[in-house]
Amino acid sequence: MYPIIMSQGKFVHKDSLTFPFEERGAQFGDGVYEVIRIYHKRPYLLDEHIERLFRSLHAIYIEIPYTKEEMISLLKELVRKNDITEDSYIYLQVTRGSAPRVHTFPEHITPNIYAYVNDFARETDLIEYGVETITLQDERWENCYIKTLNLLPNILARQKAKEQGCYEAILHRDGVVTECGSSNIFLIKDEKIYTHPATNRILKGCVRIAVERFAKQLNIPFIEEPFTLDDIVDADEMFLTSSMSEIMPVLKVDDVIIQDGKPGPITKKLQTLYMQDAKIE
Amino acid sequence: MYPIIMSQGKFVHKDSLTFPFEERGAQFGDGVYEVIRIYHKRPYLLDEHIERLFRSLHAIYIEIPYTKEEMISLLKELVRKNDITEDSYIYLQVTRGSAPRVHTFPEHITPNIYAYVNDFARETDLIEYGVETITLQDERWENCYIKTLNLLPNILARQKAKEQGCYEAILHRDGVVTECGSSNIFLIKDEKIYTHPATNRILKGCVRIAVERFAKQLNIPFIEEPFTLDDIVDADEMFLTSSMSEIMPVLKVDDVIIQDGKPGPITKKLQTLYMQDAKIE
Repeated sequence: MYPIIMSQGKFVHKDSLTFPFEERGAQFGDGVYEVIRIYHKRPYLLDEHIERLFRSLHAIYIEIPYTKEEMISLLKELVRKNDITEDSYIYLQVTRGSAPRVHTFPEHITPNIYAYVNDFARETDLIEYGVETITLQDERWENCYIKTLNLLPNILARQKAKEQGCYEAILHRDGVVTECGSSNIFLIKDEKIYTHPATNRILKGCVRIAVERFAKQLNIPFIEEPFTLDDIVDADEMFLTSSMSEIMPVLKVDDVIIQDGKPGPITKKLQTLYMQDAKIE
Repeated sequence: MYPIIMSQGKFVHKDSLTFPFEERGAQFGDGVYEVIRIYHKRPYLLDEHIERLFRSLHAIYIEIPYTKEEMISLLKELVRKNDITEDSYIYLQVTRGSAPRVHTFPEHITPNIYAYVNDFARETDLIEYGVETITLQDERWENCYIKTLNLLPNILARQKAKEQGCYEAILHRDGVVTECGSSNIFLIKDEKIYTHPATNRILKGCVRIAVERFAKQLNIPFIEEPFTLDDIVDADEMFLTSSMSEIMPVLKVDDVIIQDGKPGPITKKLQTLYMQDAKIE
């Protein structure tokens, strides 16, 4: 590579750049990530996240020099080494590594692995009172089960929701609801919980796994069947889940108000179990 | 953000990291790029590339502080400031910028813009003698007309081709051919050139634009109609195009040998015009 880089309209030596080049995460989104919630200095659902990380890595043929147990230890050490005072999260990213830009996998490349911790207060008002959503055609690729860095459709969806004063965008493929911009979506009808099966069309959330467990505790059927936009009109309750959103009541979908427009009783029960499970006080 | 980062299994201060974090290109693929060929220190099809760059930026709502003319000047200056001795290329990338990680667009964010120059010798053997290809289901998202950093499906396709000893993967949606992993694809039948129309399903290549111009010069109909996998069996000629591949004969698609398995006469005529247009000796 030639030494002079144009950066922000200036000409600088490549060594002085503060953002990356010839890094496969940055140039191709050739990597995967996890966002892990921390409550009271304890990473929540850590095993589930690391399980999924390795599934994602396997799916795009990245090998890292750690076992799951070693990765868990590293993240716990990261939490210890930082003087964390608030509820927070770990962002963990693994890319195929740095190499001269070529589409095919470079040989002898070492993955870039990093993780950092950031504060993030619980969105208690939204969790208690619920949120509004829009619906959008799901325009993503065929392999949404991999938690990759190719997130442009997701950010565009959430941005569109925000511009319409909403929290999330519910995605659908020709009317069949898959998930949201960055969360899983659930519909409750006749005391049963419905959600899209964990096929290649959705990312199987770690909180989704927890919700399945909570439903079992409550003896509420957890049915992995997709629901449609038409089903939403008659829903008893709806909620969405993610590591950052936890279990969040959905009160409105486009112009449709779900029941009386208040968080429903089953959603609240699930939230209570979440609080207990995550040891949030 | 807390100061200690886990990087490659070590714990370092975030200021000492050599790869990025909280950069939207790196974390979301929230950016676009161009690869511009340089022959004899002259960027080729520069106007077309910058035209497309601005189209991509517009599509994902990134605004940069330069006009097209200013961007062209910057790139020409980049070429002048580097002591370029070989055929090479400019890699130009624009991301939404650096900001704490949140899906929606951060306010008051400044795009990260960089470009570098790298040597790249013309693949003269492949261009002269042709390449073999495989076919794969096109699993990409719905907006392939934007040249984004979300390239995971593309690299996986090219990697699969490489593992089967091939140069490229021809992508199709249920039999309808769209384009390749990182090039446009053309089929010649009865002295007419066929290629997928420039809808949201494909990236309209700059060399594709040049080929359309060359076809006009040669009085060969350039027909923007998709062809199918079945059509390939009866093709007279096939070729693919990209800034790095130029106009490259396709001799084989999976097990199908195109005609006599040699570059065809129209492909060769187009290549001659390419050489003249790019002023390659």
